[in-house]
This record gives sequence, C-alpha cells and structure tokens, in this order.
Amino acid sequence: KFGYFGTEKRKDIKLSVFDIDGVVTDNQVHITDKGEEFRSYNCSDLEGTELLKKAGIEVRFVSEAKNTAGIKVITEKTGCQVETNVKDKLEVLTKWVDEMGLKWSQVTFMGNDVSDVPAMRKSGLGAAPADGQTEARYAARFTATNRGGCGAVRQFCDHILRLIGKTK
Amino acid sequence: KFGYFGTEKRKDIKLSVFDIDGVVTDNQVHITDKGEEFRSYNCSDLEGTELLKKAGIEVRFVSEAKNTAGIKVITEKTGCQVETNVKDKLEVLTKWVDEMGLKWSQVTFMGNDVSDVPAMRKSGLGAAPADGQTEARYAARFTATNRGGCGAVRQFCDHILRLIGKTK
Amino acid sequence: KFGYFGTEKRKDIKLSVFDIDGVVTDNQVHITDKGEEFRSYNCSDLEGTELLKKAGIEVRFVSEAKNTAGIKVITEKTGCQVETNVKDKLEVLTKWVDEMGLKWSQVTFMGNDVSDVPAMRKSGLGAAPADGQTEARYAARFTATNRGGCGAVRQFCDHILRLIGKTK
Amino acid sequence: KFGYFGTEKRKDIKLSVFDIDGVVTDNQVHITDKGEEFRSYNCSDLEGTELLKKAGIEVRFVSEAKNTAGIKVITEKTGCQVETNVKDKLEVLTKWVDEMGLKWSQVTFMGNDVSDVPAMRKSGLGAAPADGQTEARYAARFTATNRGGCGAVRQFCDHILRLIGKTK
Repeated sequence: KFGYFGTEKRKDIKLSVFDIDGVVTDNQVHITDKGEEFRSYNCSDLEGTELLKKAGIEVRFVSEAKNTAGIKVITEKTGCQVETNVKDKLEVLTKWVDEMGLKWSQVTFMGNDVSDVPAMRKSGLGAAPADGQTEARYAARFTATNRGGCGAVRQFCDHILRLIGKTK
Repeated sequence: KFGYFGTEKRKDIKLSVFDIDGVVTDNQVHITDKGEEFRSYNCSDLEGTELLKKAGIEVRFVSEAKNTAGIKVITEKTGCQVETNVKDKLEVLTKWVDEMGLKWSQVTFMGNDVSDVPAMRKSGLGAAPADGQTEARYAARFTATNRGGCGAVRQFCDHILRLIGKTK
Repeated sequence: KFGYFGTEKRKDIKLSVFDIDGVVTDNQVHITDKGEEFRSYNCSDLEGTELLKKAGIEVRFVSEAKNTAGIKVITEKTGCQVETNVKDKLEVLTKWVDEMGLKWSQVTFMGNDVSDVPAMRKSGLGAAPADGQTEARYAARFTATNRGGCGAVRQFCDHILRLIGKTK
Repeated sequence: KFGYFGTEKRKDIKLSVFDIDGVVTDNQVHITDKGEEFRSYNCSDLEGTELLKKAGIEVRFVSEAKNTAGIKVITEKTGCQVETNVKDKLEVLTKWVDEMGLKWSQVTFMGNDVSDVPAMRKSGLGAAPADGQTEARYAARFTATNRGGCGAVRQFCDHILRLIGKTK
C-alpha cells in the first residue's frame, strides 16, 4: 500500500546505526533544584528500530557519552548492541563493517552534530533529525521532519523499510 | 451556535473507543537517571470524553500495554471501562459491538499506529491524532490537528458531538 | 516606543481576572507511575501580572479546581486574591465588580473553556489563549498567539498596558 | 564550508555575555503538588558556548536571580564566570569591559526581556531568542529562530563564529 515511489534507487541495507544523544533522546534536559536530570525519548522511535530488526536489519547504537539514562533505556528495551564512550564514531562503524563483511553502501547512520558527519558521509545513507546542527543536516541525504528524541528515528526507519522494499 | 455544516451525513453514534498510548497519552517519555518514567496527558482530552458521556455515548479504552501510568489515570479519573493487554483491538471491539447489540456504523475508534488500522477501518468513523503513524492517518476519516496526548481526543469528541447534533 | 496604534479605543481598566487551569498553567499533565503529577507555568506570565499591578490594575484569579499546584504557586508568588472551587465564575466577578464599585467596561477576563464564556462576554475585554477551546476563542476579543501556561497571559497583559496608555 | 556570506561586516569579538533565565534556561517551569520545580536547558546551547571558548572568546553569564538550578548547571558544566543577583546588567558588563580593556564593539550580549535591553544596545552585537519579549527582540540585531533554553544560544554562537571568520 505504501510502496516506494521516490527517486532514490532501491537499496540493500544490512546495518543501521544510530547516535544516541540528540537522535534517540532529545537534547532538552529538565533539572530539579537538587540537580536531578530528566531526558526524553519517544516510544515510536524504539518501535521503528524494532521494525528494522524484524526486516532482518542489524540495529546498533553509538554514543560519545559514558552513561546516560538514554543509554540504559536503549540497552534494556531494544536488546541491541550499544557502544558508549566513543571518541571516533567512524572508527567504530569501520570495525563493525569489517566484522560483518559489509560494503559501506549497506550501512545507514543517523546523527545530529558535527562529530557525526564523517560517519554520515561514509555510510550508504546518512540521516539527521529536523533539529540537527547545520553541518549534520547538510551532510544528510535524509532529513526527518521530526526532531531528535521525538519521532525522527521512526521516520528514518520507515524510509529504510521503503528503500529495501519491505513496505507495510 | 457551532452547528454542523460539514459534508458528512449526521450520524447515530453509541460507542466511542480510544486507544491509550499515543492517543490519550503521548508517546514522549521522560526518564531520570534512576529509570523513573513520566508520561503526559491533557486535561481537555478527559473533559472531551466526559462531554461524550453526557451526550449518552458509551466511552471505552483499549491498550496493548499491560499497565502504564496513563491507564491508571484513565481508570481512576473517567470511570470508563478499560481493556488492557489487548493483542487484537478489533476482536475486543467486535465483542463490545455484539454485547451492546450495535451496528458498526454506530461505533467510533481513535488510534495512532499500524495495529489500530483494522479497528479504525471497521468502525463507522476512524480517527487519528496529528502525529499518528502514516498508516493510521491514512486509514482515518478524521485526523486531528492536535497531537496525541495533547488535545487530539478533545477535537475528535467535539467532532462527534457535532455529527450527532449535540452541538454546544 | 511601543505606543498603541490599534483600532480599539483606549480603555480604563481597573480589574484583570484570570482563570487558572489552561490559562496560567497549561492543560498538559506529566505523571509518574506512582501517580505523582507535574504541571507547567511560564515565568513571563507572572511577570505580566506584576506589570499590571505596577500600572495600578487589581489582578485576581478564579478557578473551578479546589487546589492544584498552580493555585499554590500563584497564591505564593503573586500575592493576589485567588478564589478557588468556583462553580459560577460570572457570579464571582459580579461580586467583585459590585464590591469595587466598577463598571463592567473596566474589567478584563481571560479564560480558555466553555465555562469561561459568560464572564468573557460580560467583561469589557474577554481574552483566550491560542489553545483555548473553540467557544472560548470565539467569545474572545483578544486571542493570544501563545498557548495557555506558555506566554498567553503575558501577551494579554502587554495588550492591556497598551490599551490604558501605559506602554513601555 | 559554511563561510560567512551575510551583509554584516566581519567582527572582532572578545567577550560574549548571556543572560540565564529565558536564554540559557527557558521560562517554562514544571511543578509538583509538593512545590518541587523543574527547569529546562538544551545541551547544544552549552556546546555552543564551548565552541566560542575554543575560538578564544571569553564567555560569561549574568542573572537577576539569586540561585536557580540553571545557574548551578552553568557554573558546574561550563566553568565560566557567572554573576548572579544582578540588579543592573549594563553595570556588570561595563565593569567587565573596563577590566578586560575592551571596546564595546568587541562584546556581544544575549537577553530576553526588558531589563536586558540597555546591555543589548550598548554591546557591539545584541541578540534575543525567538520567544524573547517584544522590547528585547526589537533591540536585538540577531534574533534566533529557536526559543530560549531550546537552541537559541547555540544559533547565536554559530552566528558569532561566522562573524569572526572561525567557520567550521
């Protein structure tokens, strides 16, 4: 019903990697006077990655942060591999591409800031949320109309499913 | 004063069913580092279902979730029947339609995701919030301009009241 | 610098009354699994009422609710008179107008829902937030572009200050 | 890659000062029934000030408030000088300009309300967030499309980096 009528060629995607802060969680932090912090994520985003997994795509997450609430949630709720405390995201992706014996064209990466740009450019399909920094949106082939932590991941997952022909 | 001037024919509606996650509550989750979670709902949405009840319409809720804060709130604040842990929402609606001796044209259903589409299509009037998934908005005859958990339910309730001629 | 160039005639305003839920606070409620609730208000709104008081206008609040966090905040932070648990807001306003020996043209009222409409119509200048219900926005002479609990009160305060010639 | 193609002349900026409430944090306050308060800030804003510091610009903060959660966060996370409980912001800026032996044209100031206007006008480049009060946006040469506490600071930091020729 929702087939792919876009201008991009159909793709063979095997690995979808997502940055965490600003992509799966938003950049907005709520703090109490005691310094307790809250972050936000969107259920439909995690459902999106679930749809990718059902379509046979490996889903993984990378983060520069050591440990945030967002990372715990993703680790516990998705069961996906998460690499934290990452200095160079492209290095981690390169390691994964080698280990899985993939071509770069089979990899997608969604990021929101300057440090995500190299991985976005190298992967077959780079994506950014609506509120990504200028450099990230400039480097992205797919820019979500939803903000990070607020549906951007789900939109990109739906886009990937159309590209691989697994439309709902 | 706000009579119905739309193009749809007046309706005879007896049962209004609402999905919970993403419809009454939003899909946005706020988490602390300790893993404590917050969800959001909008007072005007619960007031909307109250208006339906006053107009003689039975209001019920269905949810795939076992138990979330949103479900507790609805159960306690609306006093309506809530069916949780539902695998097949259309099955539950069919049971209710049979029990109440209704025609499907007398039933409305508001949902926001793929799993809600069968019930939306079967019922007399299917509705979706502004931020519903593409499939849900595509299947809906009424799409709210408000997001789920943020006024979408109230808009649909107002629409129903106009359709049955109980305009304020 | 920001004088009044509108089409409404200058006014003599002595009393500004604001509804609380959906006007000073927003209708969005955040809940934990334990049932703890959070509501939101905007600092600039309370600053707006402060500006009215400095301009010699009496500021008061009415609410149908018995006691909410919003009411506590307003009572403690503004020092204004607050009447809670109100069934008929117009009745309360009528009492105040009589006590203060005012004409109705000297009174403003900002509300967001059906129950606020009589007071909005009776007062010299009725106002509603951007996300007020249809009936309230329809009855309002001034509709803010900001939502309730999110700057609507401040916009109306600024509008009043221009109308009485106390422009900044 | 993202060079400066605007109409303003390149600038020599040495000191960037930011108001806190409504600029770094937003004006929205979330409260529990117990009176506990939450405020919000955006990670990308603090990253923006970090970029300014790396470009050799001194970053400082002023606030009228005595102590809020926002101030603690900024003090601890940015390591910048913060002056709180400030009655006259222009006075503080004047002191800093004298101490650092700067010209006013080398100073930027971002504020959101009436009390920020004198400092915005005196400094070489005044800025305001999208939801700043009318007077502040009127006095600003740069108005962010993002709201305060929600990316406005980052946008202004990016603008400054382009003006001084330190484009990324």
